[in-house]
Amino acid sequence: MKLLRLGAPGEEVPAVLGDDGRAFALSGLTRDIDGAFLASGGLDRVRDALAQGGLPVLETTGLRIGAPIAGPGKVVCVGLNYRDHAEETGAAVPERPVVFMKDPATVVGPYDRVLIPRGSVKTDWEVELAVVIGKEARYLADPEEAAECIAGYAISNDVSEREFQLEYSAQWDLGKSCETFNPLGPWLVTQDEVGDPQALGLRLAVNSEGRQDGDTKNMIFGVHYLVCYLSQYMVLRPGDVINTGTPAGVALGLPGTPYLRAGDVVELSIDGLGTQRQTFISA
Amino acid sequence: MKLLRLGAPGEEVPAVLGDDGRAFALSGLTRDIDGAFLASGGLDRVRDALAQGGLPVLETTGLRIGAPIAGPGKVVCVGLNYRDHAEETGAAVPERPVVFMKDPATVVGPYDRVLIPRGSVKTDWEVELAVVIGKEARYLADPEEAAECIAGYAISNDVSEREFQLEYSAQWDLGKSCETFNPLGPWLVTQDEVGDPQALGLRLAVNSEGRQDGDTKNMIFGVHYLVCYLSQYMVLRPGDVINTGTPAGVALGLPGTPYLRAGDVVELSIDGLGTQRQTFISA
Repeated sequence: MKLLRLGAPGEEVPAVLGDDGRAFALSGLTRDIDGAFLASGGLDRVRDALAQGGLPVLETTGLRIGAPIAGPGKVVCVGLNYRDHAEETGAAVPERPVVFMKDPATVVGPYDRVLIPRGSVKTDWEVELAVVIGKEARYLADPEEAAECIAGYAISNDVSEREFQLEYSAQWDLGKSCETFNPLGPWLVTQDEVGDPQALGLRLAVNSEGRQDGDTKNMIFGVHYLVCYLSQYMVLRPGDVINTGTPAGVALGLPGTPYLRAGDVVELSIDGLGTQRQTFISA
Repeated sequence: MKLLRLGAPGEEVPAVLGDDGRAFALSGLTRDIDGAFLASGGLDRVRDALAQGGLPVLETTGLRIGAPIAGPGKVVCVGLNYRDHAEETGAAVPERPVVFMKDPATVVGPYDRVLIPRGSVKTDWEVELAVVIGKEARYLADPEEAAECIAGYAISNDVSEREFQLEYSAQWDLGKSCETFNPLGPWLVTQDEVGDPQALGLRLAVNSEGRQDGDTKNMIFGVHYLVCYLSQYMVLRPGDVINTGTPAGVALGLPGTPYLRAGDVVELSIDGLGTQRQTFISA
């Protein structure tokens, strides 16, 4: 299933896409697509309602697409998780996952405008596979248990300001938490529909020029391992988001470091998860 | 004013302390003490209601004290912000604030038990002055504007697992985000009652042995500067919490590195902000 949220920021209504591409309103089932919805078996209720055919069609023309999950409690990020990206940034391939966080309020819709922070000269892109947690994960015994805790997947643009991230201190969060720095969506695609999370192509283009073209098979630490690993150190709760790292091709690693400028258009796609497109503007 | 939240986890009711130490229920004014309450002028409404004398007395006997703010959107931390603490950890005095984050779900009540993570041998304490944001702070022009954005202050124990924080990767968040790792409270003390935030003594004892005895006058970057600085890189929203750093005396910096063990009792106090006491137990 593909779940989504449609409407103005803060006024999104929950919906699901049918096989024919039509959107069906979920307002009769839930107020929103959030942690409480996922924790209470919401996905099963949607599946049943879809099968029974009673959901009202939602007219989507002109409606903004929001992030597919409302109010994530945290956004956990894994750095340098593709061998080629670790190499392009000059970093060693890590022996353990490199874990940092973004302000969860940075999550915006997949087509929303992204703000280049005032004073920024090094705003960069990162296409990533985002994991959305569906069930509490706490001290999982092994990676096999992780699958039960995952609601689904989405595209994430882990936008980064490299000067703030790398030059102002050794801690990265400052350059990861700027306003609008985490476009997410368009859909929350359920696990059953995605299949093997380690067999997904990821692509990103800037002004139609291809910049990233990777595959989740090249992750150093796979999705199930990451969920299990993180659960040893923090509690992952329904609605939490994990950005699982980006492949090579970010501005930081390219000749001439072509960082983003106002007016640039960034397009992202991941197999089965749809596409995103953002215009970057000055804050 | 001193605001607080009383009751079982997830069922806290909002209250305010009167000058005579009695608690008054705020349930008639607000559902909770959270970002929406602060953003909508909630503190002024409480002040008016207290002055008018119409608030019902709340019988507090046997009630747990929760964190004084519900559901903070983020917890931003400033590292190495006291000269003596930077020195004891062997770190250079930073030229800019060192900024990292904790999972906001780590926030618990000031007397709740704190869990030593499974496998941990380096769980440590940090008494800190916490700032609670009352009004959105975004690209503030100068530190003077910061005062308008602060709702008040509380004690924070920025509990840290040093192996997870410092030895597993160069990013600190993993060792800061373990379950229950941020006791907060007992009160949200409003700015007017605290006075100068750079003139507060902070103390912490473990099993009645004094370990930290600092003063906020020794911060490298003061509270108003920090709020202004952070607002250049991220949006601070009502209900967000900033942990402003800890003075010398953490286990990491003491002879013999006396990290916490199950059964240890940690007591914290800051001038005018009350006291905390936590028993540490195994997760």
